[in-house]
Amino acid sequence: MKVEYINPFLAATVNVFNTMLNCPLTRGQPFLKGGAQPQYDVSGVIGLSGSAKGTVVLSLCREAALQAAAAMLGERSETIDADVRDAVGELTNMIAGSAKAKLEEFSLNVSLPTVITGKGHCIDFPRQVTPICIPFECAWGPVAVEVGLDDGAPQ
Amino acid sequence: MKVEYINPFLAATVNVFNTMLNCPLTRGQPFLKGGAQPQYDVSGVIGLSGSAKGTVVLSLCREAALQAAAAMLGERSETIDADVRDAVGELTNMIAGSAKAKLEEFSLNVSLPTVITGKGHCIDFPRQVTPICIPFECAWGPVAVEVGLDDGAPQ
Repeated sequence: MKVEYINPFLAATVNVFNTMLNCPLTRGQPFLKGGAQPQYDVSGVIGLSGSAKGTVVLSLCREAALQAAAAMLGERSETIDADVRDAVGELTNMIAGSAKAKLEEFSLNVSLPTVITGKGHCIDFPRQVTPICIPFECAWGPVAVEVGLDDGAPQ
Repeated sequence: MKVEYINPFLAATVNVFNTMLNCPLTRGQPFLKGGAQPQYDVSGVIGLSGSAKGTVVLSLCREAALQAAAAMLGERSETIDADVRDAVGELTNMIAGSAKAKLEEFSLNVSLPTVITGKGHCIDFPRQVTPICIPFECAWGPVAVEVGLDDGAPQ
């Protein structure tokens, strides 16, 4: 996928964390992700389709998931319960929804988010797509966004 | 989601396993899935979007994933490696692609599949959607397809 496609997702993630969670993110160096490597504790996954196809993964360490949910719901859970999973799905939805608006040329729609839990879970993309991973740090710990987008062009 | 939406996914799964893998499936009783429950060892996830939004999960026990990949690739892996994960993503893609054609009223497009691994991983849908799970048995062990579709109607 073209590197310029990543910028809307980067900007959307920073913006959603700032405005929805009042949580500034520090961005690390984006990198191409090869193979299945473990994600953080909780991952939101959402599909994009239109004249390109894609998937966005938002992965949060446990503390970031709990704190993000607390900021959205006004009440802190001590476990990754249904409220926390729902909040992570909604964050993923907001990031993908905001980014797709800046990729107008693909007329993208978002699918339903799903939320993955399970220690050391891995999320792998199809071989024809090399996802770009953007690592972030925040006061609650590490967060990452991964985007794979297939615009039909040779990789 | 309406129960009649499940039939295209059921038919597509049976058909893809028959034609692509030469593997007849025996269907169990579909049920509404509440909360995050562990999936089998390998799960393919793909988004659907258009005038409805959805997600399809195909979850396979380890042996079914290895055998399905062997049937597709002509060579058996002994571990859930990149080839096996790719095969599971492609099966998920075929099931969703075949089912969407029968849900014309929603003009659905499929996203990129992702493949989840990790012992005891759970995949949770947003609260506004109650996914329907269809359990299957085959000679290689258990397989399940879960579909959540939000057509905007109250649940």
